[in-house]
Amino acid sequence: MGDRGNFKKNLRKDAREDIKLTTSSSTDLHCSFHGALPPLLGWNSPEIWRDRDDIQPCRAILDEDLTKTEPTAAIIDGKMIAEKIRQEVTEEVTRLKSQTGGKVPGLAVVLVGSRKDSETYVRSKKKACKEVGIASFGEDLPESSSEEDVLAVVRKFNEDPSVHGILIQLPLPKHMNEEKVLAAVSVEKDVDGFHPLNIGKLAMQGRTPLFVPCTPKGCIELLLRSNVDIKGKHAVVIGRSNVVGTPAAMLLQRHQATVTVVHSYTPNPAEVTRRADIVIAAVGVAHLVGGDWIKPGAVVIDVGINPIEDPSAKKGYRLVGDVCFKEACMKASAITPVPGGVGPMTIAMLLSNTLDSAKRAYGLIN
Amino acid sequence: MGDRGNFKKNLRKDAREDIKLTTSSSTDLHCSFHGALPPLLGWNSPEIWRDRDDIQPCRAILDEDLTKTEPTAAIIDGKMIAEKIRQEVTEEVTRLKSQTGGKVPGLAVVLVGSRKDSETYVRSKKKACKEVGIASFGEDLPESSSEEDVLAVVRKFNEDPSVHGILIQLPLPKHMNEEKVLAAVSVEKDVDGFHPLNIGKLAMQGRTPLFVPCTPKGCIELLLRSNVDIKGKHAVVIGRSNVVGTPAAMLLQRHQATVTVVHSYTPNPAEVTRRADIVIAAVGVAHLVGGDWIKPGAVVIDVGINPIEDPSAKKGYRLVGDVCFKEACMKASAITPVPGGVGPMTIAMLLSNTLDSAKRAYGLIN
Repeated sequence: MGDRGNFKKNLRKDAREDIKLTTSSSTDLHCSFHGALPPLLGWNSPEIWRDRDDIQPCRAILDEDLTKTEPTAAIIDGKMIAEKIRQEVTEEVTRLKSQTGGKVPGLAVVLVGSRKDSETYVRSKKKACKEVGIASFGEDLPESSSEEDVLAVVRKFNEDPSVHGILIQLPLPKHMNEEKVLAAVSVEKDVDGFHPLNIGKLAMQGRTPLFVPCTPKGCIELLLRSNVDIKGKHAVVIGRSNVVGTPAAMLLQRHQATVTVVHSYTPNPAEVTRRADIVIAAVGVAHLVGGDWIKPGAVVIDVGINPIEDPSAKKGYRLVGDVCFKEACMKASAITPVPGGVGPMTIAMLLSNTLDSAKRAYGLIN
Repeated sequence: MGDRGNFKKNLRKDAREDIKLTTSSSTDLHCSFHGALPPLLGWNSPEIWRDRDDIQPCRAILDEDLTKTEPTAAIIDGKMIAEKIRQEVTEEVTRLKSQTGGKVPGLAVVLVGSRKDSETYVRSKKKACKEVGIASFGEDLPESSSEEDVLAVVRKFNEDPSVHGILIQLPLPKHMNEEKVLAAVSVEKDVDGFHPLNIGKLAMQGRTPLFVPCTPKGCIELLLRSNVDIKGKHAVVIGRSNVVGTPAAMLLQRHQATVTVVHSYTPNPAEVTRRADIVIAAVGVAHLVGGDWIKPGAVVIDVGINPIEDPSAKKGYRLVGDVCFKEACMKASAITPVPGGVGPMTIAMLLSNTLDSAKRAYGLIN
C-alpha cells in the first residue's frame, strides 16, 4: 500500500511531533433530532482514508518512470506571494502608525508547556510579526498550569487595548478543555477565525465574519493572485476539517464557485474530484490524490504537509502534500508545491488578520 | 419562457403577499481580504435564476402529453409524517409534564404590525402549539412601535423561565433592523436555529448546535423516516439561503453524504443535479427543476412553495414547488409533493425544537 503503509508503520515519533497536521482527529457528532433516529456517524479523518482498500496509492511513488514525462503545470509560488503580502502588510502597518500617532497592531501568543514543535511555531510567528512591524506579546505558561491560569492570561489580553489578536498555541495540555479556552478569546481578537460565530457568519448570506481562518484564506489568495477565475467554476474540496476544508468550501462558494466537498465516506473520490476545475486538498494523507484524480487543466491547491520516510534526508523523512505532485503536474494547469505553497501563506494571513483587527480597533475599517 | 415569464408579469400582488418564499433577497457580501482584491459578488437569488436564458422551462407545462406516462416515484407524505411527529411531541410533552411537576414547553411569538399573512402564520403556530400541549405566548405590537419596544419584549421573553423558544415573525416593519432584533433573542431560545452561532456549530466538526433550522431539519427527517440512506450518497442542494439551502447542505454532510451546492452562478445546473442520488430544491422559482435534472431513481425533496397563475383556482393562482412534479415523478424513486411535502414538516420541527429547549431548561437533556 505504498507510503500510506509506511506512514503508519515506520514514521518516527519525533517526525510526527515536528509536524502540525492540517486536520483534527475524528469526533462523534450529535445533532438534536426528535424521535428515534439513527445516531449521526463519526466524522472523517485521515485514518479512515488510510484504511480504505479501494483507493490506490499514488503511482509516481511506485513507478518513478512517470516523472520522465514533461510536466504541464505552472507552479504557484506561495513563498513569493506570501513575501509580497508581508511587504504590503509592512507598508500598511507604517501607514496605520502615522494615522494613529504611533500605534501598531499587536499579536499575543499563549503557549502552555514546552513542546518543541509548539515552541518553534511560536518563535516563527513572533519573528514574522517583528519583520512587518507588528508588536508581539507572549505568555509562556508551564505545563502544570491550571485551566484557570490560562483563562486569566486570555482575559488579560482580551482587555489589553494594545493586543488586537490572540492565538492559543495548540495542542494544550490534556488536562485542559481546549474548546473552553478557545471560547474565552474575545471574538474581536479571534484572528485565527475559528470561533463558531465567525464560521457561522462566513457560511451565511448577508453576514460578514470578523476574521477568516488563515489557511483557507491563504488558499483563496493564492488563486486570486494567480488570476484564477473562481466564479462559475466547479471546485472540489477534499477534507472537511474546521480549520481548512469547511471554511475553504464556504469561501469558494462566496466567490461563486459550485462546490463539492469530498470526504472519507465519498465512495468515488477520484471520479468526483476529476470533475473539478479547482481542487483544494486538505486531508492530511500523504499522496492521497493521484494524477487520475485531476482533470486536465485543473488548478490544484495542496494544503497537506505530511512527513514520509526518506532515508536520504537528514531527519529520515521529508514533507509531501496530499497530492502526488509529480503526477498532478502532468495534468494540472497550475499547482502549489509542498513545501513552499500554502504553508507560507498561513502566517502571512495571520499577519493580515491582525492588521485588520487593529484597523478595526482604531476605527479605520468597519 | 413558460411559467417563469408569467410569474413575473401576471402574478397578483396579493398572491405574492400570501406566500412566504423560502429564500431571501440577494445581498452583497464582503469578506475582509488583505490587499487590492476583487470584491465579492452578489449572492444568488430567484431573480438571477429567472433571468437566465440558458435554462429551459419545465416541459410538462408546455407538453401536457408527458403526464400520460406512468409515474415511477413513491410520494413522500409530509403531512402524514408531520402528524406522526406531532403525536410524538404530544406524548413527550405529557412525559415532561409528569417529570417536572406540571411544567410544559413555552413558545413566544412576537408579531409587529398587522400584515394579513403574518397574522395567519402566527395563528397557525399558536394553534399547533395548543394541539401538542405547548403553551404559547404572544405579544402583538403595532406597526408604529419603535425598535426599542420590540427589543424590550424580546428581553422580557429571554428572562421568562416559562418561555423556551422565541420567534420573531418576519418581515419586521422597514424602520427596524431585523438582524439586530434577531440577534437579541437568547441563543438558548433561538428555536428557529438562525443564530450564526448555531449555524457555525452546525458546520463544525465536534460541535453541536442548540437548534437546527426547522425546514432543513424537516427535509432530513423526511429522508430518514422514509428509510432513505444518506451515508455515502451524492446529494445536490439547489439554493443556498441561510434558512434552507445552506443548513440543509450542512446536515446532509453530517449524515456523510457528498454534497454539491448548486446556485444561480452554476453554469450547468441540470448536468450537476443529474449526478445526485438525493436532490433538495430550495430556490423559490416555480418549476425550475425539470425531469431532465433528475437521475433515474433519485430521491427529490422539494422545498419551494411558489404561486403560479391558475385561472381555474379560486384565488387565481395555485402553489407549486421548485420541481416540475409531473416530470420528476417519471424519473425519481421518491418525491415530496407541494403542498403536503416539506411544508407541514417545518412547523412540526418548530414544535420539536421548542420541546428540546424545554427539556434542556429542565435538565432532561444536555
